[in-house]
Order: sequence, then C-alpha cells, then structure tokens
Amino acid sequence: MTRPKRKGCCTVIHPREDNARFILLAVVMVIYMAVGASIFMVLERDNEKKEKADYDAHVAEFKRKYPQINDTDLEALLALHSKAEAAGFVGNRRDRWDWPGSFYFVGTVVSTIGFGMTTPRTVGGKIVLIFYGFFGCAGAILFFNLFLERIITFLAYILRAIHIRDLKRKGLITENKKEKGRRSSQTSDDELDAWKPSVYWVMLILLLGALVVALCASAMYQPVEDWTYFEAIYFCFVTFATIGFGDLVVSQKESYPNVHLYRFANFIFIVIGCCCIYSLFNVTSIVIKQVLNWILRRLECRCRV
Amino acid sequence: MTRPKRKGCCTVIHPREDNARFILLAVVMVIYMAVGASIFMVLERDNEKKEKADYDAHVAEFKRKYPQINDTDLEALLALHSKAEAAGFVGNRRDRWDWPGSFYFVGTVVSTIGFGMTTPRTVGGKIVLIFYGFFGCAGAILFFNLFLERIITFLAYILRAIHIRDLKRKGLITENKKEKGRRSSQTSDDELDAWKPSVYWVMLILLLGALVVALCASAMYQPVEDWTYFEAIYFCFVTFATIGFGDLVVSQKESYPNVHLYRFANFIFIVIGCCCIYSLFNVTSIVIKQVLNWILRRLECRCRV
Ligand SMILES: [K+]
Ligand SMILES: [K+]
Repeated sequence: MTRPKRKGCCTVIHPREDNARFILLAVVMVIYMAVGASIFMVLERDNEKKEKADYDAHVAEFKRKYPQINDTDLEALLALHSKAEAAGFVGNRRDRWDWPGSFYFVGTVVSTIGFGMTTPRTVGGKIVLIFYGFFGCAGAILFFNLFLERIITFLAYILRAIHIRDLKRKGLITENKKEKGRRSSQTSDDELDAWKPSVYWVMLILLLGALVVALCASAMYQPVEDWTYFEAIYFCFVTFATIGFGDLVVSQKESYPNVHLYRFANFIFIVIGCCCIYSLFNVTSIVIKQVLNWILRRLECRCRV
Repeated sequence: MTRPKRKGCCTVIHPREDNARFILLAVVMVIYMAVGASIFMVLERDNEKKEKADYDAHVAEFKRKYPQINDTDLEALLALHSKAEAAGFVGNRRDRWDWPGSFYFVGTVVSTIGFGMTTPRTVGGKIVLIFYGFFGCAGAILFFNLFLERIITFLAYILRAIHIRDLKRKGLITENKKEKGRRSSQTSDDELDAWKPSVYWVMLILLLGALVVALCASAMYQPVEDWTYFEAIYFCFVTFATIGFGDLVVSQKESYPNVHLYRFANFIFIVIGCCCIYSLFNVTSIVIKQVLNWILRRLECRCRV
C-alpha cells in the first residue's frame, strides 16, 4: 500500500495518502454533484413549469367538455392507466413476459442498466430477482473486467508495435535487432521492455471506439424507432453508461421489420457499447486518480513549506 | 499476462487461457440469461395477462358508463397523462427540478442508478447530461474502486489480527515475538507475512455488511414511504446494485416529517449501500473467476488425457 518515498518537498507523500485521496475524492464528488444540480435546475426548471401548466390546462379542458364525468371515476381511470403504462400494456407495445421480452428484462438486470420498462410485479418474481441479480451482476462485472483486461492488453500490443516501428524509422533501434543480437546505443532492450503506452492514448482510442459504436447504433435506431438522431445518441450514452433512465427504450413496439435481426443487432450493440464505455470510464478514472495525486502533493507542499 | 506453468496434467494451462476464460464466461452468461429469462417468464406471464385484462375491463367499464365521451379525446388525455406521470406532475409529488430534486437527479446519474423518475426533457439538458455524466460516472467508479481498496485493506488488517491471535492461542507462535526476537519452529515470520485472508471470509463479511445496511435502510423506508418491509428490501437491492428500475423510488412525496434529515439519511444509506454491494459484487466476481479457471483446467485435462 505504501509507496517508495521520493526526494523533494512536493513529492514527499504522507503515509496516509490512500485515505487522504479517498476523502479528497468524496469532497470533489459532492462539489461536482452540487454544481451539476445547479446547472440542471437552471436548464430544466422552466420547461417543467410549462409542461405542468399544459397538462393541467388539458385536464381542465377535458373536464369542461365533459362535465358529467365524476371526478373520482376519472382519477381512478388515470391512476390505473399510469400503472398500466408502467407495466407496458398501453398502445401497440410488445408483450413484456414472452421469452424474448423476459430475456431482454434479464439483460437489463445483469448489466445493471435497469430501464424499468419491465419489472417483476409478483412477490415471487421480486424474491427470485434478488438472488438471480446477485450472481448475474457479479458475473457481468467480471465480464466487463475481463473485457477491460483484454482490450488493454490488445491496445498495449498495438501501440507498442507502432512505438517500435517509429523508433526503427528514426534509426534509434536497428532492424531485426533480435536476429542480429546487436544493441543500439540510444535505446536498450530493457528500456523497450519497460515501455508502456500512455494512458491518454488508450483513453483516446477507447473514446473513438465508443463513439463509433454509438454513431453506428444510432444510425440503426433512428429510422427503426422513429427517433431523431440526437435522441438515439442520447439513448446510447444513457444505456452504454448503464444509467438506463427508461425515458427512451429500444425494441418496445409490437412489430418491427426483420425483428429477429434487429433484436440480435440491438443485443450486440448494447454489449459492445457497455464494454467500451465501462473500459473508457475505468481508464478515465485512472486519469482522475492522477489529478487527485497531483492535488494532494500540492496541498502537502503548501503544508510543509 | 502469461502465468508460470505448473506441473501435472490438470494444471498445465494453455497460453491463451485469458482468451479462453473470457469466451467461457460469455457462454456461461448467455446460458445464465437464457435460464433466467425462462424462470421470470413462468413467474410473471400469468400476472401480466391478469393485469392487462383488469385494465381493459376497467377502460371498457368507464366507456360504458360515459358513452358520450369521444374516444379520441379520452385517448389524448390518457396519453398526455402517461407523459405527465413519467415527468412527475401527477399526484402529490415533490418538484423535480428544485435544487434538492436536481441534486437527487444528479446522484442517480453519477452512481449510474438512473431511476428515471427525473430525466432531462430539454435538448440542452440532454446534451449537458452526456458530458456531465461522462466525468461524473468515471469519478463515481473511482470512488467505488477506492472504497473497495480501503475496505479490503481494512478487512485484511482485521482478519490478520484475528489470525495472529488464534496462532498465539494455539501456541504456534510465541507471545511478543518481535520484542524477544525469537522464532517459533512451527510458523516462520515469512509465512506470517505472506498470509492473506481467504476471499470467502471477505465475501461473507461484505455480505453481512450489505445485509445490515439494507435491513436498517428498509426499517427507515417502510414507515416513511408506506411500503411493506419486503418492498423496501427489494428497493434496497435494486438501488444498491445500481439497477434502479424506478418502479419504487424513495423521497418522491411532496412532504415528509423531518424532510432534511430523511433526505440526508437516504443519501448516506444509498452511498454506503452502493459501496458495499459494489465491493461484494467485485469479490464475488473473483470467486466466479476461480470457478471458471477450475472449469478450464478440467476441460484442458479432458482434452489431453
Ligand atoms: K441503472
Ligand atoms: K436504471
């Protein structure tokens, strides 16, 4: 846990660095959330008032048009309708609990996306969900972690090959050095073995990968779901980040052209998208950790000088 | 990436073990999901039919009672009502986009819970969400990872102290061995230094910790939200696992007794619960990985014998 201490005021790290970093991150996250709350409040508050006023006006207009309707009857109908809407009975929606629907539901559980377009409504279903979800989510986390490990290994291999090609082009290492057994004076084999790709390059490549997946997936969703391209991009981010608000959910209509192909493509896009964004978030979190370490050293420095 | 090869048929591991494990896990996960889909289909299908029939009967009854209502008008009202319900205007609900509501929303974004009780409805809000969520989710993943690291370090320290006390009690190491500078014949210092707690003990302690948090949180939610205790437990699992279906969401009523205390307690419970379950899932995923390695060795063994 403790690191080798380096020389110089700004690099002397306190032994309780790990705890300090954790507390600093907690403080930063709360500030980040407080700032975010203010931004979203400003962006959304007026729209909320307008939508609420529109809704109230519409209900009042309906009641004026049909004065004979008992208020209690209408409220009961609307309340039931809300439940039915949440359970997915309203409109030309697909069955929730046929096998493909159930598979879709299970996918949203293990990936922790949890759109909520389908939820277990029986007590039995809820009990099974807790035990099923426990092992499913743990398995999915392992899947994402193994994907992360595989993709980092792969990217390191590619970036290393590019690095060696660059060194060769610059004449810093000789061609076929292993065959001839010679050593370049500028770059030793040890240095080359210790070379690791920058976390920023890996982050950039993962970001490009995630963008390509999101752009391709959106190009599929836009015509099929009758969304705007922007809505499809927003859906992709919310889904791949496993936030899964459920305000936009794909594959909910009763029928699609080439439904099996669409569902399969949907499954593949979501799996690859979640894997890419999971890896991207983890690599970004390494960069954030470096920033926290830098801040800690600055604070430490100020304390001691 | 490659491990040192051990002797014996069943422990000779193929160099491509990492890839094999990833593919094996993918296959296992698909089978797990297929089985789960079947289970949930059986559990929920009949209830879905019943609820749908009830809803259709209620709407038909309403139309029979008020034959003068134009179908188009009613459908327009119901559709608008669904949207209003999703946006949170209906009933005695809290404001979505006042500051505490906005903070709650931001919390569901960075934690990737994403209940969906509040979602950005303006284009500006959606654009900001993508950029804000990117760094927020990465920060939260770092927070969960640092918590995992801290809790594992802490548990290892505690379990190690218990282990040493047990050894002392059994007389396998002498009291005050460091002071007297003596070595026991049975247990060397090197062995003691290399001792690590079993992953199963860590898993059990985290499981108990998560259970205690869930039971305490449910005891708070049950009276305040008018849920059954079981519903509160179900809510805790769905939330702490960051699935966040949104079928049950706390802190949505317009008023609560001691609202600030309740919101604060809610925030703390959700943070600790998510941290515990995240750690538990990660430790469980290590156990799953061990099971996969065991399966791979058995398969390997069968291939070679
Ligand atoms: K979620
Ligand atoms: K969700």
